[in-house]
Amino acid sequence: MQKKIILTGDRPTGKLHLGHYIGSLHNRLALEDSYEQYVMIADVQALTDNFATPEKVTHHVFEVMKDYLAIGLDPEKTCFFIQSQIPELAELTVYYLNLVSLGRLERNPTVKTEIKQKKFGDSIPTGFLCYPISQAADISAFQAEVVPVGEDQIPMIELTNEIVRKFNRIYQTDYLKTCKAHLSTTPRLIGIDGKAKAGKSLGNVIFLSDSEQEVRNKVFRMYTDPAHVNINDPGKVEGNVVFAYLDAFHPDKEVVASLKAHYQKGGLGDVALKKLLNQTLQDFLAPIRTKRATIDTQQVRQILARGTEKARKKAQQTIAHVRQAMGIQYF
Amino acid sequence: MQKKIILTGDRPTGKLHLGHYIGSLHNRLALEDSYEQYVMIADVQALTDNFATPEKVTHHVFEVMKDYLAIGLDPEKTCFFIQSQIPELAELTVYYLNLVSLGRLERNPTVKTEIKQKKFGDSIPTGFLCYPISQAADISAFQAEVVPVGEDQIPMIELTNEIVRKFNRIYQTDYLKTCKAHLSTTPRLIGIDGKAKAGKSLGNVIFLSDSEQEVRNKVFRMYTDPAHVNINDPGKVEGNVVFAYLDAFHPDKEVVASLKAHYQKGGLGDVALKKLLNQTLQDFLAPIRTKRATIDTQQVRQILARGTEKARKKAQQTIAHVRQAMGIQYF
Repeated sequence: MQKKIILTGDRPTGKLHLGHYIGSLHNRLALEDSYEQYVMIADVQALTDNFATPEKVTHHVFEVMKDYLAIGLDPEKTCFFIQSQIPELAELTVYYLNLVSLGRLERNPTVKTEIKQKKFGDSIPTGFLCYPISQAADISAFQAEVVPVGEDQIPMIELTNEIVRKFNRIYQTDYLKTCKAHLSTTPRLIGIDGKAKAGKSLGNVIFLSDSEQEVRNKVFRMYTDPAHVNINDPGKVEGNVVFAYLDAFHPDKEVVASLKAHYQKGGLGDVALKKLLNQTLQDFLAPIRTKRATIDTQQVRQILARGTEKARKKAQQTIAHVRQAMGIQYF
Repeated sequence: MQKKIILTGDRPTGKLHLGHYIGSLHNRLALEDSYEQYVMIADVQALTDNFATPEKVTHHVFEVMKDYLAIGLDPEKTCFFIQSQIPELAELTVYYLNLVSLGRLERNPTVKTEIKQKKFGDSIPTGFLCYPISQAADISAFQAEVVPVGEDQIPMIELTNEIVRKFNRIYQTDYLKTCKAHLSTTPRLIGIDGKAKAGKSLGNVIFLSDSEQEVRNKVFRMYTDPAHVNINDPGKVEGNVVFAYLDAFHPDKEVVASLKAHYQKGGLGDVALKKLLNQTLQDFLAPIRTKRATIDTQQVRQILARGTEKARKKAQQTIAHVRQAMGIQYF
């Protein structure tokens, strides 16, 4: 039986961090055998709100690819490609723009929230408002049936399916496929400062490529329980970053459970805990760091060139069907 | 000295009519020697508000090309091409979307007026709102320095130049060129019913491809002066469609001036005038009709294929520069 296609990816605006690992990367490792997996480095999407600093985006394309390889994603199983190198996606986006009303776009809750966060004021770039349409083009160009997303991105999947159904209905085809969200079951990893939102720009993440020393420094800066002053005081586990990271990365859940009990009762110090977390993360990151050091830019370029060629062929098939359905092939 | 590039074109939503001839086609005949002229059949733009009836657009692509050849435009001098067959235009559009705020687009007076006219209600297709950005992509892709437009389209030229300047500034290039409007000096030809707006959908135009009988019928249905009941009554020239068409098409301005004087004084009947106009239009349209009959679809397809190939090369050069300036070439 043919494997279903899954499309996922990242905006290359920084190196990947532990939050990415928990939120999506480990999922890709788990899925690359059972799906035909496409991983898109979404430089065009990243440019919609970084258009004035393109080097921030372009610099990270190869860095993100290095992170993928470092964690063990296999280019023989997963197709890695760069969005901008597949102009068929732009073409499809332009046709889809006609199928979505401005009001529908403006009501998209995900985009509404992001627009507020990004503080565009009165200058919302049209490209940013339209990026869900561009996502619909990406998903349907590859005939992806499964798209891993967080809860907050479900409106994107709904919009994609609306566009696909509308296209198929108007242009009397069944070529475009609707897709399903593949929801992440792991909770989002919080920042090392305890904030729910973690990101490169907030400076509260541990990168997959951080050095041993950087990891140690970040672990020892982690937010714990500010009321836990003396070792013998009872400590709080909820909102305690060290426990959040132990939950996510310690291999033995029972050990973590017993540490939590001890901490809540009193008698377990933050320093001891942080030493344990540091060791846990060093154990997790060391092989990734080692592998990353063996990857050179030439290798990354070749993998992306090969993946992009494969992905482009798939997108070209779709655009050929799309043009035929719309009747816009004249020669 | 190298000729300047001029870009012009039509939305292929119907066959061309006398209003097109007066408004733009005769201008193209006059300019094809002194400029490097590109004429775009704008099917992508036409789809922004005809997406649900694509056959209306696609059917007319070849018809419009036949009209071009019938009036004597020379494919050896002018490059004719089909917009949808140059995907680089979509790619450029997607990058330009980032450079224009939603508010800026919504304030565009031309689009505002059109949105009202087209009665989209709450469902303005995003593609329609964005078509001025797509126009900016068309103009700058061909490095056009001159764009023939009507007064009402000057905001489009301003937006194009804003985008070009912003792109060149942000991405530190001088490759994209600003353009100048080439304003039509002839007044817009009114409809045969006397309405200022003439168009296929209003049923008040004479097509270049109308038969002799159709032309005659339309001339004799023309709106004149409803108060001019008896031949000997003085008649009104202003708003009189027959005189508007004589002004536009009669070869001898003095004859028309003397007829106007006679009509205003009284003693000149509508039927005599309409006979004269019919003869004038038949003389003008007969060679066009004859030439059109000699043109077959195969010939039209070849001309468009050749022109599209040439135009695409030009657009590819531009997109290569654009990608380089943005830093998005990785291989």
